[in-house]
Amino acid sequence: MSDCIFCKIANGEIPSATLFQDDDFRVILDVGPASKGHTLILPKSHAANIYELDDELAGKAFILAKKIARKLSEGLKCDGMNIIQNNGQSAGQTVFHFHMHLIPRYEGQDIGIEWHHAELKQEDKEEIMKLFS
Amino acid sequence: MSDCIFCKIANGEIPSATLFQDDDFRVILDVGPASKGHTLILPKSHAANIYELDDELAGKAFILAKKIARKLSEGLKCDGMNIIQNNGQSAGQTVFHFHMHLIPRYEGQDIGIEWHHAELKQEDKEEIMKLFS
Repeated sequence: MSDCIFCKIANGEIPSATLFQDDDFRVILDVGPASKGHTLILPKSHAANIYELDDELAGKAFILAKKIARKLSEGLKCDGMNIIQNNGQSAGQTVFHFHMHLIPRYEGQDIGIEWHHAELKQEDKEEIMKLFS
Repeated sequence: MSDCIFCKIANGEIPSATLFQDDDFRVILDVGPASKGHTLILPKSHAANIYELDDELAGKAFILAKKIARKLSEGLKCDGMNIIQNNGQSAGQTVFHFHMHLIPRYEGQDIGIEWHHAELKQEDKEEIMKLFS
């Protein structure tokens, strides 16, 4: 898409700290990292979110995430790794080109992504199970 | 694994609010949801984390995430969706059997998973790019 900054980065029109690329993806360092080594996986073809990404690329994206996560983890000797993919502004997505975050985690460093827990309500459970029945 | 609670849930030894299952995965409602519709994708075979999950299952897991996310999103009319997969205690993983969170998001509802941003330091950038060179 001509006005999409991640299209331009993924296709090399805008420079980035590129860790890896192949025909389908570019893997770059996030310029606003949540932690040391915060990395983004971008498909080269435009898809606004997971729903627009075709299944083949979706599968490849997560296999690539595994490979990059391992390399980051071994190289940075981090203690954990969050793999996060946000869809929609309400989910914190700010650039509307599918991307997957790999966020290395280091013991004792709180980066603010532990979520609150509630209880599973019976009426919600019934409503949601009906969607899948 | 005989003492793994998610193995027992995935294989039906412990009951769960199951939304979907096939040969490889069971998809259940999280009993401590961050939001209405918080769902977990569990492989039936044991893998502690993404590094132990074989590539074929990793690819299938994310394709399944897409399918389930769409169904939740349409059914619950939520505004966004976080797909989160944590590896290691430092990353917030509490059960050491690979699982992927699908967290529906609703406008105006803060569930505490927006992370802090820092700046990408030049020395970090160089160190990390060397890992991949």
